[in-house]
Amino acid sequence: MNLTGSQWIAGNPSSESSETFRAANPATGETLDPEFREATASEIDAAVTAANAAFDPFRNKLAETRADFLEAIAEEVLALGDSFLERTAAETGYPTARCEAERGRVVAHTRQFADLIREGSWVDARIDLPDPTRKPMPKPDVRSLFQPVGPVAIFGASNFPIAISVLGADTMSALASGCPVVIKAHPAHPGTCEMAAAAVHRAAQRTGMPSGVFSLLHGTSHEVGTQLVEHPGIFAAAFTGSLAGGRALFDAANRRPVPIPFYAEMGSVNPVFVLPGALKSRPSSIAEGFVAALTQGVGQFCTNPGMVLGLESDAWNSFCETTAEHVGKTEPATMLHAGIHSAYRTGLEQRIEHESLELLARSEAAASDEALEAAPHVFRTTQQGLIDDPALFDELFGPVSLFAGCGGPDDMIEVAEKLEGSLSATIHGTENDLAEYRELVSVLQKKTGRLIFNGFPVGLEVCHSIHHGGPYPATTHSRFTSVGTRGIERFVRPVCYQDWPDSQLPMELQNANPRGVLRMLNGHRTRDEVS
Amino acid sequence: MNLTGSQWIAGNPSSESSETFRAANPATGETLDPEFREATASEIDAAVTAANAAFDPFRNKLAETRADFLEAIAEEVLALGDSFLERTAAETGYPTARCEAERGRVVAHTRQFADLIREGSWVDARIDLPDPTRKPMPKPDVRSLFQPVGPVAIFGASNFPIAISVLGADTMSALASGCPVVIKAHPAHPGTCEMAAAAVHRAAQRTGMPSGVFSLLHGTSHEVGTQLVEHPGIFAAAFTGSLAGGRALFDAANRRPVPIPFYAEMGSVNPVFVLPGALKSRPSSIAEGFVAALTQGVGQFCTNPGMVLGLESDAWNSFCETTAEHVGKTEPATMLHAGIHSAYRTGLEQRIEHESLELLARSEAAASDEALEAAPHVFRTTQQGLIDDPALFDELFGPVSLFAGCGGPDDMIEVAEKLEGSLSATIHGTENDLAEYRELVSVLQKKTGRLIFNGFPVGLEVCHSIHHGGPYPATTHSRFTSVGTRGIERFVRPVCYQDWPDSQLPMELQNANPRGVLRMLNGHRTRDEVS
Repeated sequence: MNLTGSQWIAGNPSSESSETFRAANPATGETLDPEFREATASEIDAAVTAANAAFDPFRNKLAETRADFLEAIAEEVLALGDSFLERTAAETGYPTARCEAERGRVVAHTRQFADLIREGSWVDARIDLPDPTRKPMPKPDVRSLFQPVGPVAIFGASNFPIAISVLGADTMSALASGCPVVIKAHPAHPGTCEMAAAAVHRAAQRTGMPSGVFSLLHGTSHEVGTQLVEHPGIFAAAFTGSLAGGRALFDAANRRPVPIPFYAEMGSVNPVFVLPGALKSRPSSIAEGFVAALTQGVGQFCTNPGMVLGLESDAWNSFCETTAEHVGKTEPATMLHAGIHSAYRTGLEQRIEHESLELLARSEAAASDEALEAAPHVFRTTQQGLIDDPALFDELFGPVSLFAGCGGPDDMIEVAEKLEGSLSATIHGTENDLAEYRELVSVLQKKTGRLIFNGFPVGLEVCHSIHHGGPYPATTHSRFTSVGTRGIERFVRPVCYQDWPDSQLPMELQNANPRGVLRMLNGHRTRDEVS
Repeated sequence: MNLTGSQWIAGNPSSESSETFRAANPATGETLDPEFREATASEIDAAVTAANAAFDPFRNKLAETRADFLEAIAEEVLALGDSFLERTAAETGYPTARCEAERGRVVAHTRQFADLIREGSWVDARIDLPDPTRKPMPKPDVRSLFQPVGPVAIFGASNFPIAISVLGADTMSALASGCPVVIKAHPAHPGTCEMAAAAVHRAAQRTGMPSGVFSLLHGTSHEVGTQLVEHPGIFAAAFTGSLAGGRALFDAANRRPVPIPFYAEMGSVNPVFVLPGALKSRPSSIAEGFVAALTQGVGQFCTNPGMVLGLESDAWNSFCETTAEHVGKTEPATMLHAGIHSAYRTGLEQRIEHESLELLARSEAAASDEALEAAPHVFRTTQQGLIDDPALFDELFGPVSLFAGCGGPDDMIEVAEKLEGSLSATIHGTENDLAEYRELVSVLQKKTGRLIFNGFPVGLEVCHSIHHGGPYPATTHSRFTSVGTRGIERFVRPVCYQDWPDSQLPMELQNANPRGVLRMLNGHRTRDEVS
């Protein structure tokens, strides 16, 4: 398709500003056409106003019709064809195969949300029947269900330009719930964003959605994002990105005269604990698996394993050596953009000069600064070296990890207690190890959203039971996930109807249960109608 | 029981400070024994530290054992006997019958939470089974459920000294979820709080709970509350009270280096729309019901109906006159404390002098300022008078309401659009009215947490489907309720287990489903075990 570089507001291009920027191919430095325009304050306002105009018609559509819209998005995304993947590859330095995998994930989660709302039970319909004879007060008829909160602002991530951007689970869950969406495109892949937005618009048109249901805004400045979050017509926001960026917008959302929930996923350290049984039985496969996880997507995953802990021993030394061999054989690869590359380089230099750290290994091949390449690095320290410097508990985004040898189980627990909130924590061990290290598991459980046994945190399964969240700073609200069907809960609130006439109730609350959803009736779950 | 005036920290009295205060009987001005001590910073820290020490042993108790604890609380509260109700009556000016009704509600909601966790399905256990043969990547075993977040700070309300204070649904839902609780007692009824805390402590002892599971702190200053919310050992907080107080603590919670969710319920205007069909068919019963709702608890309900809208007509004039007659016959009554009484008096004066308002009626009997009495008042204006002054959309706490006559349905919609978030909105009408005023209902639905038909918002039903929440400023997070079993969701977060050995999983996720809970298995709800 022909990229315009405009905002897309309610299905129409808008190009008010003369301030422009371009995407660049991080591997070659080549700037890419076209010029993209910064959204102006009036364009932001127009997008939000259109979203509010679309809210009633959109939320009043039958759930089946909204499901059709989502299915149409999946089809239109596939219909973009190879040129979509090629544009993404050019803007990110990712191999086309990786872009294709992300597209597959988009199709999967979009259809999953379509299935979820077609089935309908997610609205958590509840009915408590009345009792007019109850003393001293008659019992009223009380019913409730989830309803959409209103237009939602979404901020895409740079590291998943397809799967956690315009077409991410944030967008799909918000649309599934009945909320119109205004997207702030990530400036590192604006062309990918415009193509994705075009697919959503076409799907909206095909399925008769109100045009304001979806708009796309561009911007390199913080102002565009802040103005969007501060707009009184925005009722919730979701974000994936850095801690600094997420916290700034979270603060803006909370400072509003009417605060709104701001759901940010801001990455984490994702510690891996290698317990003695595992170290003994399969050191090579763990080392191999670790290095594969470390380097996936050039280490630019929120779930990248940034810390590995084991008990000081010959087995640990030998595990470190095996890992070092694997790291040495890795290839440097291009990072997403100059900002990430420069932060990675600075972080590496600090670690190289850090008196408590030794460089365990780095890829033997040289990294090209011009091509924004990152060489995988693994550092090594002791438990004490780690504990002594709280900065070592912070995430460094990229293919880097820190190994720390502990004197005993208590040392491991001390490290676990000092961890900040994390999206995941991993344990390699035997079932006996798990039972023996129960206290460690108990501490980790309080620090994380996902516990993994004998695996690695990258490669998130998109399903009903997944939780991609965790205590701050992994996210701003540990109650919610940004991946999986539970993500829809961020964009709804319960609405309760007391003694409301049956004919005027939302379908899921009507006596006859015409949608056949699973409801809570006087405290028991059933699909029965109310007689 | 013998009141000590101390803090109660992990089952022990603590009296570090020499700064003291006393409760007063608002009806007589008489100060009540004993002196209560302000909590010191070290006492706040001791309570939170004890709560954290109690967290692991408490959350690891069987759900049945936590349910026994809750049942024991209900028993111990009843065992406090009449002296509990008498102390509450003395501290609040409420009739003993009202105190008894509140105690009944405590027993009901405490047992409801006990039943909820004994049944167990509330943890929303989800299982997605693995598929090792899936291409290109094997599918892992993924399971998740709700787990408690950690120690919770709770701020009781002045207006429900028993039912929304130490023994409120906030406390019971937090304890039910597995979170230890630190309560900031309301300084207007500290004796009630100490007696209630003693009942909780006795129940904790009887059922073998760790002593730090519950602590009580006193304080008249903002500092005690702020320090509690800012303590790094507090993981969530719940509050019922004023907008100013709630917002200040909400801001403190969000400013923390590690922000925590702060769930505040801050009252609202609770508008009532009287549509033409209702005005025609039963004006007297609506007027009577309205005045009963207006004066319940001396108008000191979060759900007090503060605004009434109707279409200008002879029927509306006559409805206003009937209401005025009923208001005239009401009796002034004692408010909860001098601060509330003084704010009510100031608010009344502003309304009396307001050029767009006329006084429709007030109770004919004189109110005694010495006894902190409030006389019920109803003011009247036009839709234009209302629209012209945004301050008239703010809640005035007490038995006062504002009637506004509208020129037509569009006027009503204009008012509805200008409403701030509200806990409830009420419509009196026929089913035909509802269908005709669909757009009004649609606007109201976006503004409120509970829609009531032909009833009044006071007298909240405590059940599974109730929602006592709503858009800001009714609450700080419209996703959550402070009343009803859904309230437990504020104090939990999902925790996900990937490829975790069955024997080490929480019971609700184990293959055999030993607790027999309803789970989501590969997307379908079932109590079946996993074979």
